[in-house]
Amino acid sequence: MTLKTITSPERMYQWVSRAVLEGRKVGVVPTMGALHEGHLSLVDAAKAECDLVVATIFVNPTQFAAGEDLDQYPRPLENDLRHLKEGGASIAFCPAMEEIYPRGYSTYVSPPEIAAPFEGLHRPDHFRGVATIVLKLFQMVPAQVAFFGQKDYQQTLVVKKMVEDFNLPIEIRVCPILREPDGLAMSSRNVFLSDEQRGRAVAISKVLAEIEPEILRLTDHSSALKNRLTGVMETARKRLEVKVDKIHYLDVVDAQTLQSISDTTTEVVIVAAADVGDTRLLDNRLVKIR
Amino acid sequence: MTLKTITSPERMYQWVSRAVLEGRKVGVVPTMGALHEGHLSLVDAAKAECDLVVATIFVNPTQFAAGEDLDQYPRPLENDLRHLKEGGASIAFCPAMEEIYPRGYSTYVSPPEIAAPFEGLHRPDHFRGVATIVLKLFQMVPAQVAFFGQKDYQQTLVVKKMVEDFNLPIEIRVCPILREPDGLAMSSRNVFLSDEQRGRAVAISKVLAEIEPEILRLTDHSSALKNRLTGVMETARKRLEVKVDKIHYLDVVDAQTLQSISDTTTEVVIVAAADVGDTRLLDNRLVKIR
Repeated sequence: MTLKTITSPERMYQWVSRAVLEGRKVGVVPTMGALHEGHLSLVDAAKAECDLVVATIFVNPTQFAAGEDLDQYPRPLENDLRHLKEGGASIAFCPAMEEIYPRGYSTYVSPPEIAAPFEGLHRPDHFRGVATIVLKLFQMVPAQVAFFGQKDYQQTLVVKKMVEDFNLPIEIRVCPILREPDGLAMSSRNVFLSDEQRGRAVAISKVLAEIEPEILRLTDHSSALKNRLTGVMETARKRLEVKVDKIHYLDVVDAQTLQSISDTTTEVVIVAAADVGDTRLLDNRLVKIR
Repeated sequence: MTLKTITSPERMYQWVSRAVLEGRKVGVVPTMGALHEGHLSLVDAAKAECDLVVATIFVNPTQFAAGEDLDQYPRPLENDLRHLKEGGASIAFCPAMEEIYPRGYSTYVSPPEIAAPFEGLHRPDHFRGVATIVLKLFQMVPAQVAFFGQKDYQQTLVVKKMVEDFNLPIEIRVCPILREPDGLAMSSRNVFLSDEQRGRAVAISKVLAEIEPEILRLTDHSSALKNRLTGVMETARKRLEVKVDKIHYLDVVDAQTLQSISDTTTEVVIVAAADVGDTRLLDNRLVKIR
């Protein structure tokens, strides 16, 4: 299997257009590089469904705020290309910054309302940047299917809603979170953790895993799950806050709306964001309650 | 020549996709209906360049502010379809409101900076609505070329910049303003004018036409055209304000940036917006100065 690297948006568009004209099904896996097994599971899912797989590698500055870790974000390009080659991707699309955001760039996506809570509250303009780069990538790589990881759960909702609202002719697949053996959700940012921090970071996934059976226990015939969960969440928060350095949020909400659980909620998501050292980590768990 | 009417976005997308797969060149003419010869000249231009022409008819609510003429906007659908049939369009795409902005719709385009002056100042959110519907139409009708009228000059700049910034795979053509015999720019809103108002409305195009030779006269070797135009523009404004009921703006600016004329300006645009009665009318004239 050979891997072709393309940097020009025009050539990328031409390549995918031709493949589609020839009747091929093309899948795209948008990434910011620093690929781990989670990303490669997206490539696997794409290979299983599509004839050709384009992985994009672009560390998107517009989704980082000033003071965030844009400059520190890992960029191990050689490793990434080797992983993609071994993983069976057809193309690595690695455009230059000036191609994506040339001087005078000024058009953005104003993201859907689902972008407002959680990450949207804590990282203003984050989803504006995410939605903008995803829209642009979908135009440069006019694939039929795109693959995202559930790890960034709110992001998957933002992308799906944008695709629906903007009539983008692409299907979105969301693939399960991959975890380290102890449960820590795989993330490109895990490399920032010291051994000591790595030991504490696992608390996030452990706490989420402990909340899940509590939800199921409280669920039967409950129309006031939200209230009955208050004690569970307080306990969970106390267990987590002694392990991490800051909890940005830890909550259980309707998995479709990210709003409070209601009588019509059929699935909830437990969402968490916490700092361990200077590293901001996310995790989530979906739980069907009906 | 038969004209096919399509209302479903999905069917529209399938139709154009299939045509493109079969090697056809498809042109799209986005309109809000109430078609006049100006629109039909866009269909003509599209027919001259493309194998198939899709005209879209959709009165887009998101580009109207509260209190503007959304409800009054003319919707002579039968006439429009007859015009499109006679004009040789292949498809009239007439989607329903609920298809384009279903309940819960919440994703918008935050338009480029070129949207800020002139119409952007006088109609906040107007270009947000324009950019959003144009992006959506380009996804539902994935044509290779789109045709817009120069009458809405700033709109053509907003669309071109959005296409560039978002990497939309479509080319934008801008076609000349069509005018009534006395010079009034054709507009769907002209039907709102009483005979008396219609008599006064022509002043807008007349004043623009009178400014043009003044610009050319002052241009030679001038690096300070802007200052030398001050007197010309004051005179023009006085001539116009006795004819119309309100001048929103009357200005001469760089045709690419809509900013003040500079040493690098090679073309200017004379732009005007004025009310005659309750009807807001636009006009413009491009003048090459180098």
